[in-house]
Amino acid sequence: MAAGLSHGAGVKIPLPQKVDVAAALDTFTAHWTPHVLADLNGQQVKVAKLLGRFEWHSHAAEDELFWVLSGSLEMHFRDGMVTLEAGQMLVVPRGVEHMPVAHEEVQVVLFEPAGAVNTGENPDGPLTVRELKRLS
Amino acid sequence: MAAGLSHGAGVKIPLPQKVDVAAALDTFTAHWTPHVLADLNGQQVKVAKLLGRFEWHSHAAEDELFWVLSGSLEMHFRDGMVTLEAGQMLVVPRGVEHMPVAHEEVQVVLFEPAGAVNTGENPDGPLTVRELKRLS
Repeated sequence: MAAGLSHGAGVKIPLPQKVDVAAALDTFTAHWTPHVLADLNGQQVKVAKLLGRFEWHSHAAEDELFWVLSGSLEMHFRDGMVTLEAGQMLVVPRGVEHMPVAHEEVQVVLFEPAGAVNTGENPDGPLTVRELKRLS
Repeated sequence: MAAGLSHGAGVKIPLPQKVDVAAALDTFTAHWTPHVLADLNGQQVKVAKLLGRFEWHSHAAEDELFWVLSGSLEMHFRDGMVTLEAGQMLVVPRGVEHMPVAHEEVQVVLFEPAGAVNTGENPDGPLTVRELKRLS
């Protein structure tokens, strides 16, 4: 079996590489530092480990999906709170202030536009991570 | 605690609703019929159950992410094949012919642009599903 695949007029590109999510999470320990798993359609799939209280922020132009893989994540809004357990996801619409809180470590998948900054409209804070590590 | 959240100049919108992925998968049994879990940034998160052999197809303008939740999925390309086990994901780039094959039932999450048709450039085949059910 060849190592490449046909793409367009006889052009071969490498076979797409699969990513193992648990293995990717095992490569780092830092909290609040999203790592990129995949790029597609101008969006990115990221994984992160969360512990403690993040900061209030919003993203003017980006909806943000949180999918909890392990642990229990509180997503605080100015007028309410939703708790996500493992296997549950939630979309935070653009423009909506939110603050994730993890009383114990939470492993989460994020799906959002490439270039989204983790602290949203507060892009220069101590929690801001601009250079994301890539895991694939 | 209020049921809504502040959005912009005092406008209240409902709190975002969480989605339980396993519960969503329990709501249907049909194979090769993606169900929409979430909409964001012009993209959709879908779940589907796969069994058997799909058809060769490609998507001219859409990259497509497959994330296997259970089972073992063969993603065939014209010049190779990648097997995805539970917890593994792969992006099929736009324009690349592919054919998913599941020898036993596979549960999968898809990330792709809203409006992507499951059979890609063959939009009128027997496997085409145009009206997707929504689970949230």
